[in-house]
Amino acid sequence: MQVYDAPIRDMRFVLEELHTDDGFGDLEGFEDFDGDMISAILEEANKLCKEVLLPLNWPGDQEGCRIENGVVRTPKGFQEAYKAFCEGGWAGLGVDPEWGGQGAPHALGKMVEEMTCSTNLSFGLYPGLTGGAMVALEAHGSDELKNFYLPKMANGEWSGTMCLTEPHCGTDLGMLRTKAVPQDDGSYLVSGNKIFISAGDHDLTDNIVHLVLARLPDAPPGVKGISLFLVPKYLPNEDGSLGNQNGAGPTAIEHKMGLKASATCQMTFEDSKGWLIGEPHKGLAAMFTMMNTERVAVGIQGLGVGEIAYQSAVWYAKDRLQGRSLSGVKNPDGPADPIIVHPDVRRMLMTMRAYNEGSRAVSAWVSRALDAEHAAKEPEARARAKDFVALMTPVVKSLFTDLGHESAHLAVQVYGGHGYIQESGVEQFARDARIAQIYEGTNGIQALDLVGRKLPDRMGRNLRSFFHPVSQFIEDNAADPAIGKMVGGLQQAFGALQLSTGHIAQKGLKDPEEAAAAATDYLKLLGYVAMGYCFAKAAKIAAAALEAGTEDKAFYEAKIITARFFFDRLLPPVMAQMMAITSGKASMMDMPEDAF
Amino acid sequence: MQVYDAPIRDMRFVLEELHTDDGFGDLEGFEDFDGDMISAILEEANKLCKEVLLPLNWPGDQEGCRIENGVVRTPKGFQEAYKAFCEGGWAGLGVDPEWGGQGAPHALGKMVEEMTCSTNLSFGLYPGLTGGAMVALEAHGSDELKNFYLPKMANGEWSGTMCLTEPHCGTDLGMLRTKAVPQDDGSYLVSGNKIFISAGDHDLTDNIVHLVLARLPDAPPGVKGISLFLVPKYLPNEDGSLGNQNGAGPTAIEHKMGLKASATCQMTFEDSKGWLIGEPHKGLAAMFTMMNTERVAVGIQGLGVGEIAYQSAVWYAKDRLQGRSLSGVKNPDGPADPIIVHPDVRRMLMTMRAYNEGSRAVSAWVSRALDAEHAAKEPEARARAKDFVALMTPVVKSLFTDLGHESAHLAVQVYGGHGYIQESGVEQFARDARIAQIYEGTNGIQALDLVGRKLPDRMGRNLRSFFHPVSQFIEDNAADPAIGKMVGGLQQAFGALQLSTGHIAQKGLKDPEEAAAAATDYLKLLGYVAMGYCFAKAAKIAAAALEAGTEDKAFYEAKIITARFFFDRLLPPVMAQMMAITSGKASMMDMPEDAF
Repeated sequence: MQVYDAPIRDMRFVLEELHTDDGFGDLEGFEDFDGDMISAILEEANKLCKEVLLPLNWPGDQEGCRIENGVVRTPKGFQEAYKAFCEGGWAGLGVDPEWGGQGAPHALGKMVEEMTCSTNLSFGLYPGLTGGAMVALEAHGSDELKNFYLPKMANGEWSGTMCLTEPHCGTDLGMLRTKAVPQDDGSYLVSGNKIFISAGDHDLTDNIVHLVLARLPDAPPGVKGISLFLVPKYLPNEDGSLGNQNGAGPTAIEHKMGLKASATCQMTFEDSKGWLIGEPHKGLAAMFTMMNTERVAVGIQGLGVGEIAYQSAVWYAKDRLQGRSLSGVKNPDGPADPIIVHPDVRRMLMTMRAYNEGSRAVSAWVSRALDAEHAAKEPEARARAKDFVALMTPVVKSLFTDLGHESAHLAVQVYGGHGYIQESGVEQFARDARIAQIYEGTNGIQALDLVGRKLPDRMGRNLRSFFHPVSQFIEDNAADPAIGKMVGGLQQAFGALQLSTGHIAQKGLKDPEEAAAAATDYLKLLGYVAMGYCFAKAAKIAAAALEAGTEDKAFYEAKIITARFFFDRLLPPVMAQMMAITSGKASMMDMPEDAF
Repeated sequence: MQVYDAPIRDMRFVLEELHTDDGFGDLEGFEDFDGDMISAILEEANKLCKEVLLPLNWPGDQEGCRIENGVVRTPKGFQEAYKAFCEGGWAGLGVDPEWGGQGAPHALGKMVEEMTCSTNLSFGLYPGLTGGAMVALEAHGSDELKNFYLPKMANGEWSGTMCLTEPHCGTDLGMLRTKAVPQDDGSYLVSGNKIFISAGDHDLTDNIVHLVLARLPDAPPGVKGISLFLVPKYLPNEDGSLGNQNGAGPTAIEHKMGLKASATCQMTFEDSKGWLIGEPHKGLAAMFTMMNTERVAVGIQGLGVGEIAYQSAVWYAKDRLQGRSLSGVKNPDGPADPIIVHPDVRRMLMTMRAYNEGSRAVSAWVSRALDAEHAAKEPEARARAKDFVALMTPVVKSLFTDLGHESAHLAVQVYGGHGYIQESGVEQFARDARIAQIYEGTNGIQALDLVGRKLPDRMGRNLRSFFHPVSQFIEDNAADPAIGKMVGGLQQAFGALQLSTGHIAQKGLKDPEEAAAAATDYLKLLGYVAMGYCFAKAAKIAAAALEAGTEDKAFYEAKIITARFFFDRLLPPVMAQMMAITSGKASMMDMPEDAF
């Protein structure tokens, strides 16, 4: 059974208590979003997600999308749900009021995204892609394009896509072949084939705004010859009404492992009229504005699925009677005890819980930095926030999608044989979550981005935005009796991270394959240290609240127990990551290709 | 793409080189199965698997089974494949010649099973269940039942099932409700509902022999009141021809995450005529004869899927061009290098390879013990082999299915976006492999079996059958310059295992929840030590072969590289397992149930 109620208490904890001293200082422009407003928005979002999106999640998986006469149909109920979503103003939650949005901070918006990802990941992709496309358009588009398109995207009337991948090139975009030929009127005719285009076509909006990577005739080869174009499905008239079809449409939809209610399209562009976004040949940089936003969003997808997987597993573990507690019968009136009494079931539940709380804490920190890089009062704080976002984007994307997928499988395991049956609803979580480890740059690519770009950038400046608060916290709290043991664990893990960083900096300088061989383990290590830092900090806050006689005793006690579980059971493997990193590349690169 | 060629060279290595000094001595009754015979059988099995089973694997997943008018239909081609399988004598490969089988050793039979699991896991379940049913029948059935049924099962004419689970009870069989009422003619009338019955109905054989757990009218409550019955789908006449339907049939088939070509049935028995197998109320013990056989077989399923996942990923990594090698262009005539040049892709491939070779080495060791417990010349060797099988059965089942599932997902990751598309064939591996972690006792239950039953049994005697050869090997080889570093790693891991064993023995005695809280981590730790032992031993043999100027240089060099990868990258996390184990139960048991 798919069970969900938004973890609003924990969301408010990470938003309002955990990161108040993150060093970014006060932010400007979010004055309206005080505690009451945040609470009201989270409650409203929860209502929509529980009542509208969740009931469509499993049926949407079973029905899937279909393509009929060149038109993609979403599953039953999706049109009505999308209408409700837009009418509630959710499409423009984080969008600048200049374009008709609500102007909410990322820190809040990501919590709402978590809810939509929990309750209907497939659905969430439609507005999610629109949001990403708006970010790229807002940052790089001409005023004319922005004024015309953004308001219609901010209210959800039109949706957006990002069209990068072609059959022969995904990661290696330098090989892309789609062409754009300039026209006398300043527009371009775009032609080519794209694959794996999420929300590439559907029946939720009147028009779809494709952001398409293509080559100009005079483009240099490789990634330095790629430009970004805005190509609408229908060419709009000046008054915003829809004109002719634009030769930009789906030729097929993919049959996927999961995420079946999200239409993943093969697209053809045939002399489709488009407009340049940003400068010629600088399209990849412009697209990366969108990609980086999407990467954090994809990390949140992992967290979202992890959360509903956890809640659904808890429900089953309390409901399913099987066996007796090893410490004495707990349900004497029933034929057996609920399986939540069994330590190994609890190990699985606590693992999922710690993954979710740890991911939520870190993502709230990163989201706050996403806001601070534009809205912090102090220029130095803005710069530090930007460094931190750059560093943590691949970590959020990669680690949280790995953990979300693992949580989904833990839920299946808690359900036992019933979890393998489609009607249980939990195997869908595992199939849906799987894509998040792949798209928007595979998790391996994220790790290479981290060690190859983000670490060396400006002599390690990005890293210092993370190392500094962590080392300061360790120094300040090592002797705190309430959390000293956790800080000890954090210190050890942080030491492993520092040592691994040194190894990569030194070896990777001479031989980039050494850094690449270490990348995935390093990303995990860094992510676990970030979670450990957040857990230790959370435990400190919880201990203080309990000391002060809080009325919310159960919440803070549970927080401390979860933190302890993290330090006892989940953090220790980082020492092995360090050993893997320092073992070097030989054991994987020495194998002759023929021997595989 | 699903790519497979049986790893016969590695199979022969573990069969003929790796475990020759395992201390079980010479086995009797397998004299015919010399090197030439083994080679011929492996080659023939590979041919059948590649040419007949593999081409049906993906289409079978897409088509699935269906139920029409109470009859289950397998996918197109399965009937012909089953016919070919039986005509080749594969149904009776490991069966005693007394019943018409080939009498091959388990050690060889498990290699053939690995091939069928690689090439068509769904198909493999049909003969696989028959094999397990024969084991239980042979061990506990009356001569009359055995003489009548076993020959028809050994040649594949009739198939078998195991009917345990009911809607309200899976792990906790004490609650089962199916009834058996004795009749004057010595038979019983069995009535009840079962779920999750693999191969419960299908169109591959004329008759199906169900082994059904049920309660006699005078049965005591709980697991001590369960008896085992043989209930045929059709009541056979004395001459073996088929008589009437027996009220034992499917009411529905399950819609599953994967394994779709294997019919998983909901079954109803309505006054179905059956015969007692073994003694009244001792049915669970009799069924466990089958269960233990099946548990090793399920471990092999994990390995089988892991192997084809590896080979399919290697094929793609050599075929897919994307990006350039960090150490210089490797494919100057192409638009990019094959992705196998990238360290992070190799990390994934090497991980899969090491899992497969490690699992195969350990399972060959256990399979040899399965033979030795009956066929070793020395009674002491038989006893030691029996201890070792008891200890390792849950480890083989649990660890190898975890690793197989992980390998399947690594293959998906190597394929990137293409891996998420059904047509790639690799996401099927992940969906198919997932069930192996659940059925025949979830992996958590295996871990509880290990720490709760197998460890304390006869003051740790089972464990000594494993500890002794490992510690002896460490002692003998610590100074060997060829493998000394690996032996050092093994020694450290073995130390962690010993310490963890002591912790569980001490804490678990006072509080069984402490042992249960440690179970899953302990199983993994023990399994990794077993793989490490096999890898170190394999590396030693490989080094000696190279030293002696072997003609098969590439094989032995690759073996050493894979072993080094295992010690560098995969074994270190066992230290974290030790830390998790010794951290105790508190962090998972302290959470109040309401706080979940």
